[in-house]
Amino acid sequence: MYNFVFQNPTKLIMGKGMISRLSQEIPAEKRIMITFGGGSVKKNGVYDQVKNALKDHYCVEFWGIEPNPSIETLRKAIALGKEEKIDFLLAVGGGSVIDGTKLISAGLLYAGDAWDLVVSDKRAANTIPLGTVLTLPATGSEMNGGAVISRYETKEKYAFSSNNPVFSILDPETTFTLPAHQIAAGIADTFVHVIEQYMTVTGVSRLMDRWSEGILQTLVEIAPKIRQNQHDYNLMADFMLSATMGLNGFVALGVPQDWATHMIGHELTALHGLTHGHTLAIVLSGTLRVLKASKGDKILQYGARVWDITEGSRDEKIEETINKTEEFFRSLGLTTRLSEEGIGDETINEIERRFNERGVAFGENGDVTGKVAKEILLTRK
Amino acid sequence: MYNFVFQNPTKLIMGKGMISRLSQEIPAEKRIMITFGGGSVKKNGVYDQVKNALKDHYCVEFWGIEPNPSIETLRKAIALGKEEKIDFLLAVGGGSVIDGTKLISAGLLYAGDAWDLVVSDKRAANTIPLGTVLTLPATGSEMNGGAVISRYETKEKYAFSSNNPVFSILDPETTFTLPAHQIAAGIADTFVHVIEQYMTVTGVSRLMDRWSEGILQTLVEIAPKIRQNQHDYNLMADFMLSATMGLNGFVALGVPQDWATHMIGHELTALHGLTHGHTLAIVLSGTLRVLKASKGDKILQYGARVWDITEGSRDEKIEETINKTEEFFRSLGLTTRLSEEGIGDETINEIERRFNERGVAFGENGDVTGKVAKEILLTRK
Repeated sequence: MYNFVFQNPTKLIMGKGMISRLSQEIPAEKRIMITFGGGSVKKNGVYDQVKNALKDHYCVEFWGIEPNPSIETLRKAIALGKEEKIDFLLAVGGGSVIDGTKLISAGLLYAGDAWDLVVSDKRAANTIPLGTVLTLPATGSEMNGGAVISRYETKEKYAFSSNNPVFSILDPETTFTLPAHQIAAGIADTFVHVIEQYMTVTGVSRLMDRWSEGILQTLVEIAPKIRQNQHDYNLMADFMLSATMGLNGFVALGVPQDWATHMIGHELTALHGLTHGHTLAIVLSGTLRVLKASKGDKILQYGARVWDITEGSRDEKIEETINKTEEFFRSLGLTTRLSEEGIGDETINEIERRFNERGVAFGENGDVTGKVAKEILLTRK
Repeated sequence: MYNFVFQNPTKLIMGKGMISRLSQEIPAEKRIMITFGGGSVKKNGVYDQVKNALKDHYCVEFWGIEPNPSIETLRKAIALGKEEKIDFLLAVGGGSVIDGTKLISAGLLYAGDAWDLVVSDKRAANTIPLGTVLTLPATGSEMNGGAVISRYETKEKYAFSSNNPVFSILDPETTFTLPAHQIAAGIADTFVHVIEQYMTVTGVSRLMDRWSEGILQTLVEIAPKIRQNQHDYNLMADFMLSATMGLNGFVALGVPQDWATHMIGHELTALHGLTHGHTLAIVLSGTLRVLKASKGDKILQYGARVWDITEGSRDEKIEETINKTEEFFRSLGLTTRLSEEGIGDETINEIERRFNERGVAFGENGDVTGKVAKEILLTRK
């Protein structure tokens, strides 16, 4: 086990009807800006529940935080928030709305352009308090301090680090009406978040391994059932809780982490606008195959415990495990090949070029350079 | 899944050499009382590490918080703390020292006798901040708000609810020199904490089930290895982290809980002074056997996933699973029968009488009355 410091102060408020608790969670004197994405919360009743709970609070609304939230949009929210002297933020939506609102919460206390905060290496510690009402399980943003912000004019997408939400309200019923593609991408996103924190080496922490495998086993068990019936409360609660627990630090205690698949996936989103979770489903098998020399023991453990793959030679078991993983993503209804999305060599070369230009290398061993990223993508054509 | 609200703000600082961080974690101007148990921390070097880290802080020491901390001892600590105008507490030891210090932290801000706080139904919210340096993994007290306090003059032992420690430092190396019986009792305690939060019904939360099973699987895997070599760092880190995660709320999200085994075990400690974890190893098989009508499905799931018991009739599998659990405790070096500790009918009758007198009933269905507690204990003779 590696040394670590862990603290996650977010208050998690989960269950049917819990949105009504908003009025208790936000002090009466606060000037709130509520942030939204598109209009889906107006159709599924979440908007009415939120407004009803906050009917005695001062609220300003900001609409239109897009998937892969952009600095261009967020600058407008920050300007409105400064004008309105906002001192509490409530993000209502999925990971993109929450991520975007994290930048707003830092930007409201920053005099310059908020893009400075994104490209800075430092965590933004000075922030307006932020609560969330989650409607799309996927990113874990509701219980961590991270965010990913895009800049459309330059097709860039970077991680940004800030404070945790003070509270997050998760009502599984809000997921009953989600489009199938969003659920599929959310399951893939959760799955790969866990893989990034797990798929390195064996023996560092038996407990963290079990907990990561526990999330993966849960996702494998519930995914086909959700495709049958996404109105089963306990099923959707399992999905929602798995997504939160997949990226709130709980499975990352004292273990190495990878994140190369994410870094490559972000480029696919930046260049082609693919849904984040979908890009991970495309890239992951390539990462596992190209890095099987260093990740082999862990792939075997994962194959045995999550997929019950125990027969055959070492290489056969590893191959079968990687194939099972790709089949799982396909069973969600996602494509897993670049060619299926019309993406070819030009993009692969551009991603190699970007990694080289930035001088970056990812993965637990810092060996996923531009060249290795290209190798990974070439297996995904 | 049941509705729930979860928040655990404790900062967990884990790893080799982390005790030296004490000076950063406690503000320089604080007047600290450091609380200890017996003298073991002077032998294993922990005392020197703590004193060295805090050499520039004002510190008062209070020694002698005993296993099953007593109100009689804690009143003395509270009197000293008031006299010294203490505004920060540091508990250095195992669960008993931490539990006792939780009562001190509330007692320092309470004008009356601190026993009032123990017998009150309310959580003690008004407390002096408390940090811990854990030296004996078992109770999870380092990352929760609970405590158990005894009163020797009346042989009573009650749960007490307060605030979480603000930080807890866990260095696995501090466990290398623990006596074998304490390690055995610590493993049993952790095991049964998880069982209390798990062994009810199936299907409420697949994820919480997997995480509870993950701790149990880890304990089953590491226990025999620890008996071979308790100087293996990763092994002791797994034990230490499992104990913390076993009772910090992380496996209790939205699921029913039992706690009948604990309530019966507390009486065995109060009446006979047995180590807490040891009492649980004695009682648990009885709880499972007597309540197998309501817990049967979950016992089968536990048997299959933790003990790989999948052959035979339903009843055979349940019996084999309960027997395996008792064998596990015996493999730790603990006795599992009342007669082995010289405990007979008189104690069983006294426990029934106490439960009846208090009008209490425990378990997820509230059906473990005095009569049922007696049935459970009769199977453990």
